[in-house]
Amino acid sequence: MSFDASYNEKELNAVGTRPVRPDGVDKVTGRARYGADYNMPGQLVARVLRSPHAHARILRIDTSQAEALKGVKAVVTAADLPDLTDGDASLFAILDNCMARTKALYDGHAVAAVAAIDVHVARKALKLIEVDYEVLPHVVDVDLAMAPDAPVLDETIITKGVTPAPDAPSNVFAHSEFGHGDVAAGFAKADEIVERTFKTEQTHQGYIEPHACVASCNSDGSAEMWVCTQGPFVYRQVCADLLGLEVSKLKVTSSEIGGGFGGKTHVWAEPVALALSRKAGRPVKLVMSRNEVFRASGPTSATSIDVKIGATKDGTITAAEATLRYTSGPYPDTWAETGAMTAFACYDLENVKTVGIEVLVNRPKVAAYRAPSAPMAAFAVESAIDSLAHKIGIDAVDFRIKNAAREGTRSSYGPVYGPIGIGPTLEAAKAHAHMSAPLGKNQGRGMACGFWFNFGGQTCTDLNISADGTVTLSVGTVDVGGSRASLSMIAAEELGIAYEDVKAGVADTASLGYNDMTDGSRGTFSSSMATISAARNAIAVMKQRAALMWDIPVEDIEWKDGQAHAVGASHDNLAPLSVKDIAAKAGNTGGPIAGHSELVADGAGVSFGTHICDVEVDPETGATRVIRYTVIQDAGKAVHPAYVEGQYQGGAAQGIGWALNEEYIYGEDGRLQNAGFLDYRIPVCSDLPMIDTQILEIPNPNHPYGVRGVGETSIVPPLAAVANAVSDAVGVRMTHVPISPPRILAALKAQR
Amino acid sequence: MSFDASYNEKELNAVGTRPVRPDGVDKVTGRARYGADYNMPGQLVARVLRSPHAHARILRIDTSQAEALKGVKAVVTAADLPDLTDGDASLFAILDNCMARTKALYDGHAVAAVAAIDVHVARKALKLIEVDYEVLPHVVDVDLAMAPDAPVLDETIITKGVTPAPDAPSNVFAHSEFGHGDVAAGFAKADEIVERTFKTEQTHQGYIEPHACVASCNSDGSAEMWVCTQGPFVYRQVCADLLGLEVSKLKVTSSEIGGGFGGKTHVWAEPVALALSRKAGRPVKLVMSRNEVFRASGPTSATSIDVKIGATKDGTITAAEATLRYTSGPYPDTWAETGAMTAFACYDLENVKTVGIEVLVNRPKVAAYRAPSAPMAAFAVESAIDSLAHKIGIDAVDFRIKNAAREGTRSSYGPVYGPIGIGPTLEAAKAHAHMSAPLGKNQGRGMACGFWFNFGGQTCTDLNISADGTVTLSVGTVDVGGSRASLSMIAAEELGIAYEDVKAGVADTASLGYNDMTDGSRGTFSSSMATISAARNAIAVMKQRAALMWDIPVEDIEWKDGQAHAVGASHDNLAPLSVKDIAAKAGNTGGPIAGHSELVADGAGVSFGTHICDVEVDPETGATRVIRYTVIQDAGKAVHPAYVEGQYQGGAAQGIGWALNEEYIYGEDGRLQNAGFLDYRIPVCSDLPMIDTQILEIPNPNHPYGVRGVGETSIVPPLAAVANAVSDAVGVRMTHVPISPPRILAALKAQR
Repeated sequence: MSFDASYNEKELNAVGTRPVRPDGVDKVTGRARYGADYNMPGQLVARVLRSPHAHARILRIDTSQAEALKGVKAVVTAADLPDLTDGDASLFAILDNCMARTKALYDGHAVAAVAAIDVHVARKALKLIEVDYEVLPHVVDVDLAMAPDAPVLDETIITKGVTPAPDAPSNVFAHSEFGHGDVAAGFAKADEIVERTFKTEQTHQGYIEPHACVASCNSDGSAEMWVCTQGPFVYRQVCADLLGLEVSKLKVTSSEIGGGFGGKTHVWAEPVALALSRKAGRPVKLVMSRNEVFRASGPTSATSIDVKIGATKDGTITAAEATLRYTSGPYPDTWAETGAMTAFACYDLENVKTVGIEVLVNRPKVAAYRAPSAPMAAFAVESAIDSLAHKIGIDAVDFRIKNAAREGTRSSYGPVYGPIGIGPTLEAAKAHAHMSAPLGKNQGRGMACGFWFNFGGQTCTDLNISADGTVTLSVGTVDVGGSRASLSMIAAEELGIAYEDVKAGVADTASLGYNDMTDGSRGTFSSSMATISAARNAIAVMKQRAALMWDIPVEDIEWKDGQAHAVGASHDNLAPLSVKDIAAKAGNTGGPIAGHSELVADGAGVSFGTHICDVEVDPETGATRVIRYTVIQDAGKAVHPAYVEGQYQGGAAQGIGWALNEEYIYGEDGRLQNAGFLDYRIPVCSDLPMIDTQILEIPNPNHPYGVRGVGETSIVPPLAAVANAVSDAVGVRMTHVPISPPRILAALKAQR
Repeated sequence: MSFDASYNEKELNAVGTRPVRPDGVDKVTGRARYGADYNMPGQLVARVLRSPHAHARILRIDTSQAEALKGVKAVVTAADLPDLTDGDASLFAILDNCMARTKALYDGHAVAAVAAIDVHVARKALKLIEVDYEVLPHVVDVDLAMAPDAPVLDETIITKGVTPAPDAPSNVFAHSEFGHGDVAAGFAKADEIVERTFKTEQTHQGYIEPHACVASCNSDGSAEMWVCTQGPFVYRQVCADLLGLEVSKLKVTSSEIGGGFGGKTHVWAEPVALALSRKAGRPVKLVMSRNEVFRASGPTSATSIDVKIGATKDGTITAAEATLRYTSGPYPDTWAETGAMTAFACYDLENVKTVGIEVLVNRPKVAAYRAPSAPMAAFAVESAIDSLAHKIGIDAVDFRIKNAAREGTRSSYGPVYGPIGIGPTLEAAKAHAHMSAPLGKNQGRGMACGFWFNFGGQTCTDLNISADGTVTLSVGTVDVGGSRASLSMIAAEELGIAYEDVKAGVADTASLGYNDMTDGSRGTFSSSMATISAARNAIAVMKQRAALMWDIPVEDIEWKDGQAHAVGASHDNLAPLSVKDIAAKAGNTGGPIAGHSELVADGAGVSFGTHICDVEVDPETGATRVIRYTVIQDAGKAVHPAYVEGQYQGGAAQGIGWALNEEYIYGEDGRLQNAGFLDYRIPVCSDLPMIDTQILEIPNPNHPYGVRGVGETSIVPPLAAVANAVSDAVGVRMTHVPISPPRILAALKAQR
């Protein structure tokens, strides 16, 4: 999809302003409908029975007593779902994660589900299901899982990407490698080298809204689902694939979303709800409890990362290397590969090599979490960079500026960069008042950089003009961070009408073509591409209608400032026609006016950010307080700056939580010990300072307005920025995230 | 919108077959969601206070006690609605009918409404509202309302269309006139003349599902509504106009519809529900009771019609004249005008004149009912034709055949006909075994013809192709009679795929461009025009995609039998690509594949039918039983013959009810005495014989498949067919519908 680049020079009226958010009233008045806020007549309540064991063979499931209980309308186990064992491995993993077929692979793994007339009956029914387990040894730690004597989760897995192939199964699914140059030669040229191992713990996205859906399957093969998701079209495709439905016969409607951050891009229990409905012949509502959300959805990888970086005394990095071990939960995935791609993406390196290692453990299947895999890699690399700067005695910002990637740099993961913002964010950080503000006792300052790819993908938009000239914009990307506002602004800008005259809504899957999900920071980027295209198509129609209204050739009409103008001396008497003028006559000039677009939004611009963090550490308790935090990030063009700032602040807040507090804590028995917000502590308002933001706008040349994705990059630097600040405050390099009070106290003790 | 006419010769695979109906499972399993089957969190329950007087000035409404009642969240009267008194008269009437502003104009006219936390509180609140009425004299009969001493409903009304204009207000809103030639000269040439006055009583559409909606208005001016309607886009437009909302900010979703027949083309209480929600700040559910449906929605006109027809002895009609007086309820409308247009539309007449007279009475505002206004006109005309045939001693069928309109006939309402089906339906009737079957004692046979215009109008359709090659078809015309099936068949036919691979759904107003409502028998006609256009647009895209996949010029590709074919010797090695083949690669060839269409569906073909009816009348009780009934109608191309037959049977059943039983019965006090299905008796299964059908297919040249509207014509002949049969059985001309037992006994008595 290519566009007229001249639009980049256009004076903007709507884009770049800060109008009131369109979902604000709905949300503050409680009118917005989330996953659990939908009901169908005759619906049943579903509950899921989950394994209490981290690793166990399922010998027998007896559901007969549950099925006999009055009020129980359906019980399903894996036996009621298609057996995909010999099919597509990825689909098998998705379905096996939804309902264990032969083994329970983690504490919380679903083994059966019931649909009953109410929650009391459903709960009672769960207790009547008998499951015989053969408990197996388990492993949850990434390094222990790679040990030769580790219990192996899947005996069929032989590590891929290693030559020669190993001769025994292991928990290592695959190796992947990126880079260029000769790192050995590079290290040989280095004056100083830092080599260190880092570790990060598993975290959860911590969205406030648990997974929830209402599914209704008909006996004729058609079905519908109301669900909280970042991608109704993807859920439709996956559920259809898993259950053998025709894609078009399954209608998925996405609810308002109470946070997703990547965790609502995967199906968790939705196929089970559909299967229950199909068996019961009634609609089924399934809402996860918080405990279930923690135990059986969405966490990140836990990681263990080796980094080695060498530089000359003048501050030039000569070589950089990293080995990144990422858990993927019990099924193969590519999280380490992604981490390996991002690790050194901020820098212009002659010699660089990264290896990603995918490790299976008895933990829940890992899900995307905002720039997935990048924060851990950045934590390791940016910590090492910091150490190296100290070691060679160069200012940490200057060191990064000297080595920063720029337009034309061949990235560590392959592509050559176009215009990018890492240098400008570093220069802005250097110039920022925060950088030179005085620090007090027990206080430290750190900074770090971050990178994220961003994504485009398949996108459709319908734009319909009503008889009064107002516009409905129907988009397929779920609004997770303000895209209804940004897309309305884009449509208003293109059509030359007021922002208030555009109403954007998220379409269900029956009303619009396929859209990739809202991930990869693609919501505004990709749907604005489609919106621009749809608006321009509508303008073409409006020019034709104006030609009919005036009875002049369409070639004599120009569209300017939201109006059709008749060009040429013979048309001097024709006053311009506005969208409202033309829309009012649509019924007499050919029918309703619309513009549509289906496209693949290529050219998402990569995004970089630099964060500055001040902390104060209490040496007695080991508690850390973030006292000042600044986010500087390239947004490309910021369509709605307030939303962009919100994204910057949100990512930083989540990263700070990850850096300081959040982690999955497993007992010796492999059971999760903190599956709730009381024990798994995400930062609340009082934990955080006001997070300052600075938007840089380095236009993305592939977008008519220069838009880049902005939602994810902001979570990448905080782990390292906080770690560097704490290390600065306590004088010890912190290498294990979260940097919780016990770890700080242990580090201080080790130092003494 | 014009199409390639060659498609008329195409061999058809899907169109003309009888696949299983797509909404069948939903409906028989109770899964289909009707107006009352939707709920929003926090919704309130609305109830409406209605006038017990047929005509009364509203002196005072005191809602203070109701508002003070715990649990009451809003009370509205006309004072809470915009005052449209000096605005558009039609909008004023719609809103005044929803909520009386200064006068209650009929028994059941809404005067106030409450929204409360439950139905008990709401009912109690209604009782606490004090209304002071000044009761005025009323009039409900069409002829009495025209009398010089009749109470006048609206003192501002001076009859339009009469020269010179009357000098005093009256209940006659307007005269309209149609015809051509010189009727006086025509009657002078006649050998025999029949002149007679007929009367029909007011009926209700009798849909099983009462009006129901859930409305939710936000403080930011946006709103949504779930509602049982034949036209969500029209409801959106009207409600926005009435309440001063921006059209695009109001999202209307139509529920499944439990019958409409024209009665759900008008708003009744929906604006009140929106107003209550706006005032209460919460969603409001409003469901009418059956009593309310009868008293305050949807009835037909009551009529009084003079007909005069003259013919020569050889059976040539020389002149025809009719004066049609139609009630419109308490507000001006054009029902008599429509009746006047249809009255003689079946015939080829040299001299014809009709006058329509619109009469205001203290009855509910008249609504459309399946071919609105035509059945009463046909009753009068076809009864008179029958009498005249008897009088000149010619067979009633032959008489009609001789005078039937044909291609080139100038219709009595103006336009010249294209190819039409009145002649063929009459010939088919003549040849039908029913016509010559023996009759028993007290039995009689009648026949009659009917005409309806049909309509096209503004129409939009989106057709999206999923990755598995199945299709979602998003249409804007509510499915009242099988259009999801017929449109899926049309899409399948165009794309060359299986009917089962298309899923048609009715879009909400936020997802599609404006559509006129499902009326005028336009559902399949107009949306199939748009579907064909959308499918052809999608095929154009698929050809481009195939060109990319094959890397050949798109000009080398032909679409045939649902496949892209590479044409030319150099492409002999390229196997054709199916929709599924092309869809599977869409993500790599430019994104999702869709076709869209916005158009005005011109050229709806007029439709004619001929019915034959046998009855047996019990001379002791006056009870009539229909013992055989045959419908012969021109469908153009019957897309789904089973649905077409259903339409024929449904219209006939409703017409039989109207002919024999149904009528609004008012007391002296102007109050409706039979506002319920026990006292207002529509025919049930055991009242009717199997209704035989015969579909004729005279293609509509304006539609690629020759489709005409089929839904309405079938209700036009039954009143006359039944009346002619009863007249034949009892030997007395029945001139007053319904021909209920008391009327038959009275006629028999008068005869003796």
